[in-house]
Amino acid sequence: MEKPSPLSASAFAHFADITTRWIDNDVYGHINNVVYYEFFDTVVNGYLIAQGALDIATGAVIGLVVETHCNYFKPVAFPDTLRAGLRVAKLGTSSVRYEVGIFRNGDDTAAAQGHFVHVYVDRATQRPVPLPETLKQALTPLLR
Amino acid sequence: MEKPSPLSASAFAHFADITTRWIDNDVYGHINNVVYYEFFDTVVNGYLIAQGALDIATGAVIGLVVETHCNYFKPVAFPDTLRAGLRVAKLGTSSVRYEVGIFRNGDDTAAAQGHFVHVYVDRATQRPVPLPETLKQALTPLLR
Amino acid sequence: MEKPSPLSASAFAHFADITTRWIDNDVYGHINNVVYYEFFDTVVNGYLIAQGALDIATGAVIGLVVETHCNYFKPVAFPDTLRAGLRVAKLGTSSVRYEVGIFRNGDDTAAAQGHFVHVYVDRATQRPVPLPETLKQALTPLLR
Amino acid sequence: MEKPSPLSASAFAHFADITTRWIDNDVYGHINNVVYYEFFDTVVNGYLIAQGALDIATGAVIGLVVETHCNYFKPVAFPDTLRAGLRVAKLGTSSVRYEVGIFRNGDDTAAAQGHFVHVYVDRATQRPVPLPETLKQALTPLLR
Repeated sequence: MEKPSPLSASAFAHFADITTRWIDNDVYGHINNVVYYEFFDTVVNGYLIAQGALDIATGAVIGLVVETHCNYFKPVAFPDTLRAGLRVAKLGTSSVRYEVGIFRNGDDTAAAQGHFVHVYVDRATQRPVPLPETLKQALTPLLR
Repeated sequence: MEKPSPLSASAFAHFADITTRWIDNDVYGHINNVVYYEFFDTVVNGYLIAQGALDIATGAVIGLVVETHCNYFKPVAFPDTLRAGLRVAKLGTSSVRYEVGIFRNGDDTAAAQGHFVHVYVDRATQRPVPLPETLKQALTPLLR
Repeated sequence: MEKPSPLSASAFAHFADITTRWIDNDVYGHINNVVYYEFFDTVVNGYLIAQGALDIATGAVIGLVVETHCNYFKPVAFPDTLRAGLRVAKLGTSSVRYEVGIFRNGDDTAAAQGHFVHVYVDRATQRPVPLPETLKQALTPLLR
Repeated sequence: MEKPSPLSASAFAHFADITTRWIDNDVYGHINNVVYYEFFDTVVNGYLIAQGALDIATGAVIGLVVETHCNYFKPVAFPDTLRAGLRVAKLGTSSVRYEVGIFRNGDDTAAAQGHFVHVYVDRATQRPVPLPETLKQALTPLLR
């Protein structure tokens, strides 16, 4: 089982602050592995909404998640504050590979990192469509 | 069904910032009613931890939740940022009634508000115990 | 602080089985107070969907939650299986008061119980509307 | 981006039934990608608890999650009932690779599948330890 090395914050292009919640801690007193994916979704979609590249209610194109992955390097726990770093590793014809790092505030080395692949589909037919121009323009600056 | 009026921020004594998450929105595009209780837990326990009045891992006394309640006045949605206001309405012998207001950032009127009753029990026996002095000292400034 | 008594299963009119999840347990090893409201939502909306009285995607009328409440009598924990009992305490002009009991499987006495008030609104205008006939017919058998 | 094929139920050795919840559906009306990992945790830990191979509260050895991964093939949604299939792909010295498939009830082809790597550590020191005998005996029948 190959194990990636934690990235530093400088590897990422955009950041979102995240406040943790009491319920994020599991029975072992650390943020449960599942919850990191809530942060992935949040930094990706928050960026897209802020850029005007995602219209949840009425947009003709929506992103379906087809693959997610996370490696966990060291535990974090409520009441830590975190930030999520975001970069785009690949802009395909109709898919995007986002990479996310989760940093405990003040840390430069990721506590966890992973990826997230969106395939963009027509909302009605659910068939893949070429990435809309607005989306490509929003994501190109995040390519690393 | 009597309906309380939304409180203003000045009714509360302590505040915690809360970042919302993509997953908080339900199928109707607003933060689901359940999630507000995650904020309640977070502002209460975050305050207690910051005051040194709650030691999750090893404290002899823990707070059991015996009652929760929330009224919802207007919807909030990811990616809104929120703050949770906290006050203590009653310090009993072994119980505390916390009241919480959820404000959309910048708003002075609560989007939702509710309460939360903790009974403090011995961790081992789970029997109610008088509120520890540290806890009373931490909570007295929040009485309104 | 008045404290209600736990109801028996015979007080409820409809039941839904619920499997608990590892993440439901919080740091104290019991299902967190927040999670019970996930069960409330589930038994109410599951019943409505099964009766054809709620069309999430396209129905003209949706239920907004305006008040929720829960009392907790004894802890439950993953991997317990649970069932949620449902009854309707009041059918108003445009609102419904649902009452829910959470039972550990095999138990006849509620581990927790609470209520949940829906106001039915027009999906577009979000203004209250009289309860649709389909909904009244679905809920009348649950009145206790 | 290589894409795995969905497995059939016969590829798995143990199954757990899962009831979905209203809150599992996200704004697009399907179970959010994050929630599948709640099912992974649940089928793994539920199996270990049932086998007496995991003592959450007092066991000397606990499983830390170091890697998780999921591929999503077709959407599922509340109120679907699901089952999670579990197998063990690798028993290492101190780590285990679990593989999980999520099936909509009645389906023989996975709607989603992924893996989950546990490293077993001493609860106090958090250092890896050889897999306890009880754990190896519980997991060997799941090897596929």
